[in-house]
Amino acid sequence: MSQLPLFYQEEDLLQSYIDGLLLAHPHLEQLENYPIIVDKNQAEDRVPILSGGGSGHEPAHIGFVGQGMLTAAVYGKIFIPPTPEQILRAIRHINRGQGVFVIVKNFEADLADFGQAIKQARQEGIDVRYIVSHDDISVEPKKQFQMRHRGLAGTIFLHKILGAAAQAGASLAELEALGLELATEIATIGFATRSAHFPGHDQPLFQLEKGKISYGMGIHGEEGYRTVTFESAEQLANEIVNKLKIKFHWREGEDYILLVNNLGTVSELELGIFTNAICQFLDLQGLQLPFIKQGRLMTSLDMAGISVTLCRLKDRKWLDYLLADTDAAAW
Amino acid sequence: MSQLPLFYQEEDLLQSYIDGLLLAHPHLEQLENYPIIVDKNQAEDRVPILSGGGSGHEPAHIGFVGQGMLTAAVYGKIFIPPTPEQILRAIRHINRGQGVFVIVKNFEADLADFGQAIKQARQEGIDVRYIVSHDDISVEPKKQFQMRHRGLAGTIFLHKILGAAAQAGASLAELEALGLELATEIATIGFATRSAHFPGHDQPLFQLEKGKISYGMGIHGEEGYRTVTFESAEQLANEIVNKLKIKFHWREGEDYILLVNNLGTVSELELGIFTNAICQFLDLQGLQLPFIKQGRLMTSLDMAGISVTLCRLKDRKWLDYLLADTDAAAW
Repeated sequence: MSQLPLFYQEEDLLQSYIDGLLLAHPHLEQLENYPIIVDKNQAEDRVPILSGGGSGHEPAHIGFVGQGMLTAAVYGKIFIPPTPEQILRAIRHINRGQGVFVIVKNFEADLADFGQAIKQARQEGIDVRYIVSHDDISVEPKKQFQMRHRGLAGTIFLHKILGAAAQAGASLAELEALGLELATEIATIGFATRSAHFPGHDQPLFQLEKGKISYGMGIHGEEGYRTVTFESAEQLANEIVNKLKIKFHWREGEDYILLVNNLGTVSELELGIFTNAICQFLDLQGLQLPFIKQGRLMTSLDMAGISVTLCRLKDRKWLDYLLADTDAAAW
Repeated sequence: MSQLPLFYQEEDLLQSYIDGLLLAHPHLEQLENYPIIVDKNQAEDRVPILSGGGSGHEPAHIGFVGQGMLTAAVYGKIFIPPTPEQILRAIRHINRGQGVFVIVKNFEADLADFGQAIKQARQEGIDVRYIVSHDDISVEPKKQFQMRHRGLAGTIFLHKILGAAAQAGASLAELEALGLELATEIATIGFATRSAHFPGHDQPLFQLEKGKISYGMGIHGEEGYRTVTFESAEQLANEIVNKLKIKFHWREGEDYILLVNNLGTVSELELGIFTNAICQFLDLQGLQLPFIKQGRLMTSLDMAGISVTLCRLKDRKWLDYLLADTDAAAW
């Protein structure tokens, strides 16, 4: 079956991608020839925010670098986090004396590399605080002590809310407190029919039989927790809302913010249809949704699937932060 | 091969899509139960702009409804234009006495339906002016009198520039003059490996052998003008720049604006890589690119391909219009 991916044959695909993005987004620049993208207009008197991880999840994280979101993003190879040296270089570069806030996705390799870089930066006298994004709830209850709550699309809410708070003048300690409060209120779960094609591979990392759909497939091709026969958007929305309900134990009338994220190749038409289905089911639960975002925000290359992120709106200020201006390209 | 599309099984997919979009974008509203989406904040003292066409090209055109772009979009079924009655209803609804400006894509059925609606509106005393978007140059020179220059992603530049001009207070006659000047300066050509899956069909409308790529495949599954073996992003960029050069007869140092448009399922990583390749080739030609846009702006459902649009920047004001603020969701 002939289809893109084609350019994955490129030798230095990550640098070519960065070059293309820099051309299209003049507010961004690369730090020398490191896989580090920085907002040219970094405000000197604001606490800078760094995020990053393996590539293959575009537009995350380059697309979220800009005023009111991330100050910089540091990239690794496809699905592999950046090295501690690269992360340390990014921290040093954006530090202006108020310290640096770091947003890390909860994967073992990411924690190891970011952890080492943060330790070294602190030894150099840079005050670094961080939050680990762990929004994934796609684990069966009986397995939850064996499986990791991975960092998924909910990480983008951390980028936006913390970024806007920093822009509004929050201190490093305030960002840390806000990050801790937020991270526990964010949950993500998704479904897919096909994982990404890893560059250079003819076949996707994971693929289901025709007409089947899997819940909880990971953004690096990890197998999901259950595979069912596809029936309708409503069937998927119902399963996802049930899983989210177990996490939140919500009460009628509570406010939530919603992100419906295209994991890769889903058409805009299908994404809109699913957004409608999930909103109907959340409405049936009596929830209020004062903020709904949909789009391709955190992907897994050409994976075919959608993830749903909810965040309980514990503080109305979070909504102001979500609505605040940013020049990040992909928000 | 199992993959989305799945939701195309939905009975009323267009209305479900519209419902989802309205939830996510509170500045939009639907006109009764017609396939007409309107900017709630329409300025009473500005000339309103209407566009539309068949659905299946999302985020076009709903995603471009908002302040500084379209006042309304009118939708047909998948790949079928709206009826004259629907178009007329949209024109009547947004007319505030200064007339209505309409942007139509150059397809036979679109021209027939929009033409009839415009005629009727004029008979009702509404001053309607229009521009036909005909940016497609994917025709072999010897065939150019047999083939239609279709309206493709270049239409989005008309939406943005004319929308910003209207927002800045341009009259209906000024919009008409600007539209005519612009439309002849916009050219689009693309490539793909696979057309869309039409809802309810297991197979795409058009598909190439593995490793093949076709130039000029249409956004409704129309066959391209030539099929070649894929080699590299550079090979594609070179062919496309050669075709664009024949159209524009450019001189070194001229300014152009560029749109690299994801026709559907291309990954963000590949899109960035291709943006870089095309920019390198345009740079070799000595062109200046003061504005580069990339993203998923006009699609053909889950088609696998990319289109490239250039517009010669005859007037620096066009650049101001491109950079002007808009709350349209997909710009």
